[in-house]
Amino acid sequence: MRATCAMTLLAAVRGLTPPARRHGVSCLSAAAGGGRASAAVEQKKARPASTEKLDLAPPRGTRDVYPEDMRVRNWLFGKWRSTAKAFGFEEYDAPVLENEALYVRKAGEEVTQQLYNFEDKGGRRVALRPEMTPSLARMVMARKPTPPLKWFSIPQCWRYERTTRGRRREHYQWNMDIWGVDGAAAEAEALAAMVSFMESVGLTSDDVGIKVNSRAVLAELLARTCGVDAAADAARFAACCVLVDKLEKVPPEALHGDFGALGVAAADVDALAAVLRDAADAGGSLAALEALIGDGPALSNLRALVDLAEAGGFGDWIVVDASVVRGLAYYTGVVFEAFDRQGALRAIAGGGRYDRLLETFGGDPLPAVGFGFGDAVIMELLEEKKLVPETSAGVDVVAFALATGDGDEDAASLKALAGVAATLRSSGASVDVVLEPKKPKWAFKHADRRNAKAAVMLAPSEWAEGRLVAKDLKTGDQADVVVEELAAWVGARED
Amino acid sequence: MRATCAMTLLAAVRGLTPPARRHGVSCLSAAAGGGRASAAVEQKKARPASTEKLDLAPPRGTRDVYPEDMRVRNWLFGKWRSTAKAFGFEEYDAPVLENEALYVRKAGEEVTQQLYNFEDKGGRRVALRPEMTPSLARMVMARKPTPPLKWFSIPQCWRYERTTRGRRREHYQWNMDIWGVDGAAAEAEALAAMVSFMESVGLTSDDVGIKVNSRAVLAELLARTCGVDAAADAARFAACCVLVDKLEKVPPEALHGDFGALGVAAADVDALAAVLRDAADAGGSLAALEALIGDGPALSNLRALVDLAEAGGFGDWIVVDASVVRGLAYYTGVVFEAFDRQGALRAIAGGGRYDRLLETFGGDPLPAVGFGFGDAVIMELLEEKKLVPETSAGVDVVAFALATGDGDEDAASLKALAGVAATLRSSGASVDVVLEPKKPKWAFKHADRRNAKAAVMLAPSEWAEGRLVAKDLKTGDQADVVVEELAAWVGARED
Repeated sequence: MRATCAMTLLAAVRGLTPPARRHGVSCLSAAAGGGRASAAVEQKKARPASTEKLDLAPPRGTRDVYPEDMRVRNWLFGKWRSTAKAFGFEEYDAPVLENEALYVRKAGEEVTQQLYNFEDKGGRRVALRPEMTPSLARMVMARKPTPPLKWFSIPQCWRYERTTRGRRREHYQWNMDIWGVDGAAAEAEALAAMVSFMESVGLTSDDVGIKVNSRAVLAELLARTCGVDAAADAARFAACCVLVDKLEKVPPEALHGDFGALGVAAADVDALAAVLRDAADAGGSLAALEALIGDGPALSNLRALVDLAEAGGFGDWIVVDASVVRGLAYYTGVVFEAFDRQGALRAIAGGGRYDRLLETFGGDPLPAVGFGFGDAVIMELLEEKKLVPETSAGVDVVAFALATGDGDEDAASLKALAGVAATLRSSGASVDVVLEPKKPKWAFKHADRRNAKAAVMLAPSEWAEGRLVAKDLKTGDQADVVVEELAAWVGARED
Repeated sequence: MRATCAMTLLAAVRGLTPPARRHGVSCLSAAAGGGRASAAVEQKKARPASTEKLDLAPPRGTRDVYPEDMRVRNWLFGKWRSTAKAFGFEEYDAPVLENEALYVRKAGEEVTQQLYNFEDKGGRRVALRPEMTPSLARMVMARKPTPPLKWFSIPQCWRYERTTRGRRREHYQWNMDIWGVDGAAAEAEALAAMVSFMESVGLTSDDVGIKVNSRAVLAELLARTCGVDAAADAARFAACCVLVDKLEKVPPEALHGDFGALGVAAADVDALAAVLRDAADAGGSLAALEALIGDGPALSNLRALVDLAEAGGFGDWIVVDASVVRGLAYYTGVVFEAFDRQGALRAIAGGGRYDRLLETFGGDPLPAVGFGFGDAVIMELLEEKKLVPETSAGVDVVAFALATGDGDEDAASLKALAGVAATLRSSGASVDVVLEPKKPKWAFKHADRRNAKAAVMLAPSEWAEGRLVAKDLKTGDQADVVVEELAAWVGARED
């Protein structure tokens, strides 16, 4: 959950009005086997008395994804996938349910405090994953694939909040990670991919910026203002970083207690907050940072990253900002955060370098850089900017059999239609077959709903001569087409 | 979980040999910010004493999906998606976590007995979905989209078994459902899609058959042999069907007790078992069924389905079999089951008509037909038949900067390389940039691992003249190419 998480991909689930429960309605038409069912299975017509009306809403904090929303989700995931592919990243996946031990970290991160965990029937402590990185680390440790690795995934992630209402408990998150590379070129490559995705959906550096900082810079600041020695006590430093991240959201006083528990005096917290505020205000340059902590080694990696971003053609997206920390304890170097330039939304994406994560799991060290990019905030931004494309449930052809009122004739038409549909599909067309005989008025309305390019009607009189009535739904042209030429006729319709 | 479920998509997770824990190893190279890290964040070099070695295996019954396995999964899912699209089905999704009430059915089905359920932190009973149909029914009830609907999904489904070891607890399942159509054309369309998928992966009707039956036929048989009146007591009939389904797997004696609880005498159970055995042996024709129960209305829908399958060109896949029941209580009409003709595997897919499901949830009736098609058994079959294609992590280009040993020169090369990669990608190529300067030997080995078409080397001397060294990895041809022509050179490489 490196990116701020868990709002809905699309608008909130629409208010669901449960249909009135109509007792005593005839169920004959819905009996076993359809209208032609055997009397033997014509089950009780009244609903079982024991039936309770079902709650029609998905569980609290989750959402149903109807086809129109699914198309948008597939569009977004498709952009993520094609970006990952362009950058040579390979896709992986891991269980949505993990052993809770994978997330036991003591730095006070939101991600571990809001764990959706429980005990399974075998008494094991498990959790719906709050983020993908620990699973990835486990996978890398287990098989030790030859580095460097560039791996991506689009996992669903979960969190559990007791108190807040209206926030989602699940979201999807694009994860891009590079393992086995020490230098700033890894950070630059991750950010280049992030920017490439943004550009592919029509966003520019006027819409979105990427704040970059380094935990090394933060270590200098914490040493200077609070006397925290990152080198001497990594765990204390990590816990301080998690608290410093919260300074963005709450006044320093609110964190005096937590900092106090880490041995940092209240006055020092206020001083640090002031320095970070000033740094953010000074805004955006390495020079401002240099003025703060000098041109020491803490700045070198950040400087290399800025240079590489310029060379890669996306320097205009980068904003150096000493106040960016990110709320995960395991980051060790550069951290970054994509944000909307208007400042109205939460972070769009976030990530950084986490060279020591494998060690905290008892493994050998392996440098790593990555980011998480949630589906929620980006969709809010894209909707606001009117960059979400119209998607259509479009099929090429809606094919139907003309209802004649003669049962045998209609059955014969449906049979013939099955063959016609098979022929059309083997030519590559997508075909929505209307599975009951229908009048043209109904069928054309349905074809309109399906955004079909063409409608094909099988009527007994034409079919007796091997012909079908075909209509181009864009131009309105209508033609009698022999079945052997139908696929070619459909293929000639414009998209 | 209409298809028998939950074996692994691919082979079982390989045995994981935990790497030896090497204490005291230097972590310098992995320090914050990489090799160029500030001393200020050079954290403690020994691992924290509190660190316990992590369990590297995913939770029991789940699996990690490494890139080589993910490519196979994407191939399979892609075939499912393109089939669904050719048939005009729209994709939807629902939460993997559902309210437990959605699965409370009392017919003794395996799917509800093995529910992966638990109490969330708010005290609500929830479950990781065992099957998709109830979620779909809930979604259809909630919004009442205009029928007919053809919807598909590829959900992950879960089950929890206490006793059996080595069986998976999660699997993916292709679900295809048609709502709002009474007649056998709906069943035929679902089966046509199933067959179309099978053909698209190279399976024939010699490899796979689809057994079809109807609960109406079963009602006749249960009435004749056991005195069970389906029309008079739908719940008892449904519970009997779930037991009859088990007759395939265990001897009749093992079910005497369960049938007895439903008021069916042991002798009647044995008689029914014998009839079903004979029907299965007589094998495959409507005539055999007709001999058993006469040509009444119970056969008419099945007969219509067989006719439509012939008309659709897949009659050779269909096997009429009175012993097929399927283990879900909610089926009301035709049921079907895809099986491997060699008889070595569990059911490949299963489904049927479930016209009364919405009613059991307190909704209005709406006829429905659908199937679930798990990823496990089909992959076993495809592997056995050698029909799983070779997949490649292939990228178009591996681009690297020649390591010269001169730090400044190397940094300049990496910067230039970022620009070259951006240019190549904007021409549509996928580019894996090596993010550290490397010698050609290492880079070509890496390019081989990535199955790249070409390798591009940026070396200071050539780059000074605006040229790169490009190598076609298939032909071995090597050329100096000016940067302006590099994209065209890459585009001209053969796939």
